[in-house]
Amino acid sequence: MNTPTLGNACFASANSHTVGDDIRIPERIETGAGAGIEFELAGPRSKLFFDAKKTRAGIVTCGGLCPGLNNVIRSLFLELHYGYGVTEVLGFRGGYGGLDPVRGAEPVRLTPQLVDDIHQKGGTILGTSRGPVDTARAVDNLIARGVNILFTIGGDGTQRGANELYQEARRRGHALSVVGVPKTIDNDVGFVSRTFGFSSAVEDAVRVLARAHTEARSVAGGIGLVKLMGRNAGFITAGATVASQDVNFALIPEVPFALDAFLASLKQRMLGKSHAVIVVAEGAGQDLLAADVGKRDASGNTRLKDIGPFLRERIESFFHAEGIPVVVRYFDPSYEIRSCPANCSDALLCDLYARNAVHAAMSGRTGLVIGFLHERFIHVPIEVLAGHTKRLDPTGGWWRSVLSATGQPERFT
Amino acid sequence: MNTPTLGNACFASANSHTVGDDIRIPERIETGAGAGIEFELAGPRSKLFFDAKKTRAGIVTCGGLCPGLNNVIRSLFLELHYGYGVTEVLGFRGGYGGLDPVRGAEPVRLTPQLVDDIHQKGGTILGTSRGPVDTARAVDNLIARGVNILFTIGGDGTQRGANELYQEARRRGHALSVVGVPKTIDNDVGFVSRTFGFSSAVEDAVRVLARAHTEARSVAGGIGLVKLMGRNAGFITAGATVASQDVNFALIPEVPFALDAFLASLKQRMLGKSHAVIVVAEGAGQDLLAADVGKRDASGNTRLKDIGPFLRERIESFFHAEGIPVVVRYFDPSYEIRSCPANCSDALLCDLYARNAVHAAMSGRTGLVIGFLHERFIHVPIEVLAGHTKRLDPTGGWWRSVLSATGQPERFT
Amino acid sequence: MNTPTLGNACFASANSHTVGDDIRIPERIETGAGAGIEFELAGPRSKLFFDAKKTRAGIVTCGGLCPGLNNVIRSLFLELHYGYGVTEVLGFRGGYGGLDPVRGAEPVRLTPQLVDDIHQKGGTILGTSRGPVDTARAVDNLIARGVNILFTIGGDGTQRGANELYQEARRRGHALSVVGVPKTIDNDVGFVSRTFGFSSAVEDAVRVLARAHTEARSVAGGIGLVKLMGRNAGFITAGATVASQDVNFALIPEVPFALDAFLASLKQRMLGKSHAVIVVAEGAGQDLLAADVGKRDASGNTRLKDIGPFLRERIESFFHAEGIPVVVRYFDPSYEIRSCPANCSDALLCDLYARNAVHAAMSGRTGLVIGFLHERFIHVPIEVLAGHTKRLDPTGGWWRSVLSATGQPERFT
Amino acid sequence: MNTPTLGNACFASANSHTVGDDIRIPERIETGAGAGIEFELAGPRSKLFFDAKKTRAGIVTCGGLCPGLNNVIRSLFLELHYGYGVTEVLGFRGGYGGLDPVRGAEPVRLTPQLVDDIHQKGGTILGTSRGPVDTARAVDNLIARGVNILFTIGGDGTQRGANELYQEARRRGHALSVVGVPKTIDNDVGFVSRTFGFSSAVEDAVRVLARAHTEARSVAGGIGLVKLMGRNAGFITAGATVASQDVNFALIPEVPFALDAFLASLKQRMLGKSHAVIVVAEGAGQDLLAADVGKRDASGNTRLKDIGPFLRERIESFFHAEGIPVVVRYFDPSYEIRSCPANCSDALLCDLYARNAVHAAMSGRTGLVIGFLHERFIHVPIEVLAGHTKRLDPTGGWWRSVLSATGQPERFT
Repeated sequence: MNTPTLGNACFASANSHTVGDDIRIPERIETGAGAGIEFELAGPRSKLFFDAKKTRAGIVTCGGLCPGLNNVIRSLFLELHYGYGVTEVLGFRGGYGGLDPVRGAEPVRLTPQLVDDIHQKGGTILGTSRGPVDTARAVDNLIARGVNILFTIGGDGTQRGANELYQEARRRGHALSVVGVPKTIDNDVGFVSRTFGFSSAVEDAVRVLARAHTEARSVAGGIGLVKLMGRNAGFITAGATVASQDVNFALIPEVPFALDAFLASLKQRMLGKSHAVIVVAEGAGQDLLAADVGKRDASGNTRLKDIGPFLRERIESFFHAEGIPVVVRYFDPSYEIRSCPANCSDALLCDLYARNAVHAAMSGRTGLVIGFLHERFIHVPIEVLAGHTKRLDPTGGWWRSVLSATGQPERFT
Repeated sequence: MNTPTLGNACFASANSHTVGDDIRIPERIETGAGAGIEFELAGPRSKLFFDAKKTRAGIVTCGGLCPGLNNVIRSLFLELHYGYGVTEVLGFRGGYGGLDPVRGAEPVRLTPQLVDDIHQKGGTILGTSRGPVDTARAVDNLIARGVNILFTIGGDGTQRGANELYQEARRRGHALSVVGVPKTIDNDVGFVSRTFGFSSAVEDAVRVLARAHTEARSVAGGIGLVKLMGRNAGFITAGATVASQDVNFALIPEVPFALDAFLASLKQRMLGKSHAVIVVAEGAGQDLLAADVGKRDASGNTRLKDIGPFLRERIESFFHAEGIPVVVRYFDPSYEIRSCPANCSDALLCDLYARNAVHAAMSGRTGLVIGFLHERFIHVPIEVLAGHTKRLDPTGGWWRSVLSATGQPERFT
Repeated sequence: MNTPTLGNACFASANSHTVGDDIRIPERIETGAGAGIEFELAGPRSKLFFDAKKTRAGIVTCGGLCPGLNNVIRSLFLELHYGYGVTEVLGFRGGYGGLDPVRGAEPVRLTPQLVDDIHQKGGTILGTSRGPVDTARAVDNLIARGVNILFTIGGDGTQRGANELYQEARRRGHALSVVGVPKTIDNDVGFVSRTFGFSSAVEDAVRVLARAHTEARSVAGGIGLVKLMGRNAGFITAGATVASQDVNFALIPEVPFALDAFLASLKQRMLGKSHAVIVVAEGAGQDLLAADVGKRDASGNTRLKDIGPFLRERIESFFHAEGIPVVVRYFDPSYEIRSCPANCSDALLCDLYARNAVHAAMSGRTGLVIGFLHERFIHVPIEVLAGHTKRLDPTGGWWRSVLSATGQPERFT
Repeated sequence: MNTPTLGNACFASANSHTVGDDIRIPERIETGAGAGIEFELAGPRSKLFFDAKKTRAGIVTCGGLCPGLNNVIRSLFLELHYGYGVTEVLGFRGGYGGLDPVRGAEPVRLTPQLVDDIHQKGGTILGTSRGPVDTARAVDNLIARGVNILFTIGGDGTQRGANELYQEARRRGHALSVVGVPKTIDNDVGFVSRTFGFSSAVEDAVRVLARAHTEARSVAGGIGLVKLMGRNAGFITAGATVASQDVNFALIPEVPFALDAFLASLKQRMLGKSHAVIVVAEGAGQDLLAADVGKRDASGNTRLKDIGPFLRERIESFFHAEGIPVVVRYFDPSYEIRSCPANCSDALLCDLYARNAVHAAMSGRTGLVIGFLHERFIHVPIEVLAGHTKRLDPTGGWWRSVLSATGQPERFT
């Protein structure tokens, strides 16, 4: 898989250790399996495309909050500033709207003082928003400001938009390197075994599960119902379930469930133990809700129906009909979780994503995101990203651990 | 104020340091002010009413969860068991229902092993529930089981019920000491300057405020709206506001506000800073909601209308009408907060409440709760408790600190 | 007890609620006891001595670190700046040395931006040091800079120096209000029931005790020995012991112990349970160490011999002689603990100490520290402070809780 | 690389999803590189060697504490008990000594109740010790007790001893599966990209670094010196440095340093900024200490000289000679850190290590440890382990991040 580039890199790097351009990391590593797609290894290159002193970089954060955004901003800046000597790094404000001179606020010029301790805080100092970029106006603006490198921290939609920016700039004859850092708290991006923020989110979710467990155990018929993030993938739900060991039922998008079977199993649990903890990913059981076709949010994602209140209502009416008194406590901690600061595991990851993104851009690569596969950071062309989403494997070890931790049946059918 | 007693204490205590029966703590201590009600100082007495070896004690926890319940249970047991040599301590399960042999589960006999590390966990190992006690059946049960001492951990309603238990037992000629430990996360009990669990609740609320602040600052027009506990009193809201310093508007039951004035002030803030954090006690602004007369919950408390969603809706429609785009993130963390473990400050307090409750009971006192006034633990007859609730003083230092921390006007009028 | 003042206060305060000058808080409140010393109630006054617009204030932090220093600095500044409209507040750097133009760095002018989030961090942004103030040079400097109010955050020695500053200024005819905020992590100041930082220190100490407990339980013969702060008073040791419930032996300065008796008791424990946790205040058992007369540190405090390694060595040699294998793990976390950020309980306390200090200074009072007695903030003349230290009462409830939590004998004799 | 087995597996597994026996994971995955050693993929097998109902398993924990030990014990038990139906699982106490009937205490029979919440606590409920196993007596004991599967949680020495146990059992004709879970908080085991406990240790180390930073910044000439774990490898030091971003100098075993050059660089820092934070791995700079040949601890590891006090002394005497006043605060938090509970990231990892260990054993594999390479769990024959230690690569991305975070020169030469 070739990574798009802006042309020949011709400046010598001052880095004492660099990575060869010909090293490839295969998609599949099990012996006997075909290698699948092969990716460039990320890292500093011996030859640079940009002359740091004449280069201006920009950073933009898009979409929902995720722990670690400030860490990524900070390490991008530090690697550009100290690592390569880039003198001006602009922070565009408020997501893609900030690239648009009509809508956006004036970008902020980043400095060591400004980013000093931002890694200790959740959120993003640049602000964020949902919604697409106006490609033409954004490229006008980037050209006008003399920006040659743009780092886009965001999800699928953000990276698709990023790819259009680079292509539009090429059409205008402006050398623009666009390098993305994939951001999804749900951990569902292809060729990325762990996205930043995921570990922090699991850690904070486990705290909430412990509280739900306490609530459930403290009253007769107590049911703690917790909805967690996970639009299409159950990684946070599964991770928090295994780490907490307090959960009795985990429901994720990848494993459909029949409501009757689930309720029957829950009834058994309540008759036996008189309390239960249920955790449900926001994208689970969407087939159970009446279809609500066509609604999309500002980022273009399908708007999900809310499984949490739906389940709560069905559980309460089911037990009411059964004549079994229950007390359902419902927890919806998503905003709380996504705005927490990065834990150490994510702080490390953010730093490495960010520095590898800078290395890629300075070498003239463009139209890519930094991936993380088999514990190597790689260059993933954005065009490859589209068809490859990541889902939790219901036949794999992690889901087996969930089944074991909960004691729930393999399927509710 | 005399504390009710069961009769003359005649057994010598083994305690090496005891408290005289004639020491009184005045309600008011400012020089020149009348002393007001005077209370007995709590503590171990030189003479005991009960013979520990022949005494059986019971513990019951009632009402909503509160950090520290398990700490109180544990220290009650340890003081009874090791401090006095009481051989049997029963934990009645599931609140007052557990005293009722018709409805309740069999009580559990507490042991050092059983309570070993319960102080590290939230909730109550005995379970809890709302609702009154059936006095007659409960006293029958206590007599049948030979219980002479009952510790009631709960709020106003619980303690009123406790008083009836002791009086009914007296009518039957059964010496029953009933000693309460006041439990209200809202910190609104008279003659109790700090209830257990309050400090932990403020600490956990501050965590949520930090997240709401992050959410609000990360988008243009971001408003973080957090509802906290506080049915009649704003102590948690005020404490969390001052400790966090992240709040722009704090609304409490003691300080009524005009909605228009509040919204006008919020508009000024949003035009100037483009984000805001609002914290509202659950009992604030009840006059603004349509009256919903007569509804009470199982504990007999007036059911409050939900100020959180009400405010959210009014804020959104106000700014919509003003043509100012806002993004309101609403946080309702009460169940999460009340189920957290006790912090160290509360752990200490729980231990001292519990041990003083045991001292009171062993000396034959009854019909009282342990109070905490001017940093002394005292005996508060339950009959005195009724008319004396505690409210945050809008002319005092704490509210001044809130006004200073938020910058909000003294009144929204 | 009269509080020193600079003269008649004649400016009207803008505060809507103020405190009368004639309200007194007695030292002793138990009925029948004499009132003892009586103190002015702290709080905003209706008449001010200083004209805020023409007033310059200074802040200095002295001595060892303590959680909450930055909170106090921040609330002093905010009350001066927003509450009274004082336009210039100087932060003197590096303790008393910073008042001395010969030794000190140029003070920093505080601004809302500078203090924005300092309350979330441990330490002091102003820096600190031990050692006395050069009164003459400091007063020269304060006069030269036009400073009329000085807030001194520090311990006994600091406040004695503060008193000299105010008296020297008076001799020179310069109206200088010096108001202290007592700072001692050990919680051993008279007329102050709880100093800021103490609660945070106990909380962090409990974390260390849990680790020591884990270490001790994980090996046969495991002994976790933890030295905590407490030069003359055992409050941190006692508080952490009761809150943690993991400790088997607590040793404090107020309760002397015979080494042989202690070791014999420890031997019993080890033979029975094969592990133990011991916590010792730094000032405990000083009589057991060879006298080392006359050494004092830069603050003039007697330099203590180190009880931690002494005990470790004696324990190891004792069990070696007894032929009982033990593994002693020694923990000395004092620097770690004292540099932690303030918890919420301390954050509230710091805010109230600081604002009351500003109220006192603006009204023209001087030569005092803010005390906290019977849950009231009071004015304590520095001259009164000297003879009144606070010690843990070995006959009181807190020590009884320690004895109960540890199961240790009342005395090791 | 063939994994040792006890013979043909002939019992059908009830697992619905199993892993083929022929899948191999290569040591090296970069395209063009030779595959190196190839390992079996771990996971449940379709055929089992042991009949669960007739199988007795044992667990032993050896060496120093590490976060996650209890998680591993718990998941081993749960997978054996619920996953396979093994009826008896023995916990041998106090490390390898517990296998020895002469020295050891009676093993404990694990139950669901016993392991219920042990994953929330640090340490090991089984106890641990250093020192070798007496192979002959241990195998006698295992045969006598009918133990067919032994899980050994420990470091290099433990696993070498484990291998001898299996070989001795084979000589006696006893089918004994010995499967190890590698335990090293230092993260320095070959074929294991992340050992359990490492992430928790980094997280707790970062907390200490923040405190050291606070201490250093609060006094003129403040130097915070922190010694962290890392006998032969600098992973904890490097990880904590990058995650905290508070460190100015990081010293690790893999990067030798000249003391003079280091001190000269430190002097520049102190002259410029007046404070510094230094973190040193315990195994760094061993060449600087006088050789102390031949000393080994009970586990057979070379006893290291203590670099912490050595550096402290050298720094102090250097600056004294230079006439530059400094205040060095030394932190040695290793016991504190290693006894903390597992964070969520480690909790997940522990669960997967443990369950894969059970799958390996039930299929009749033996003489192996569970490895974790390229994000796959694998079978690593113990014999392969010996020659392959893992070190931090001074030319790789992680060390580059350290250099960037600290600003220190690439080499102190």
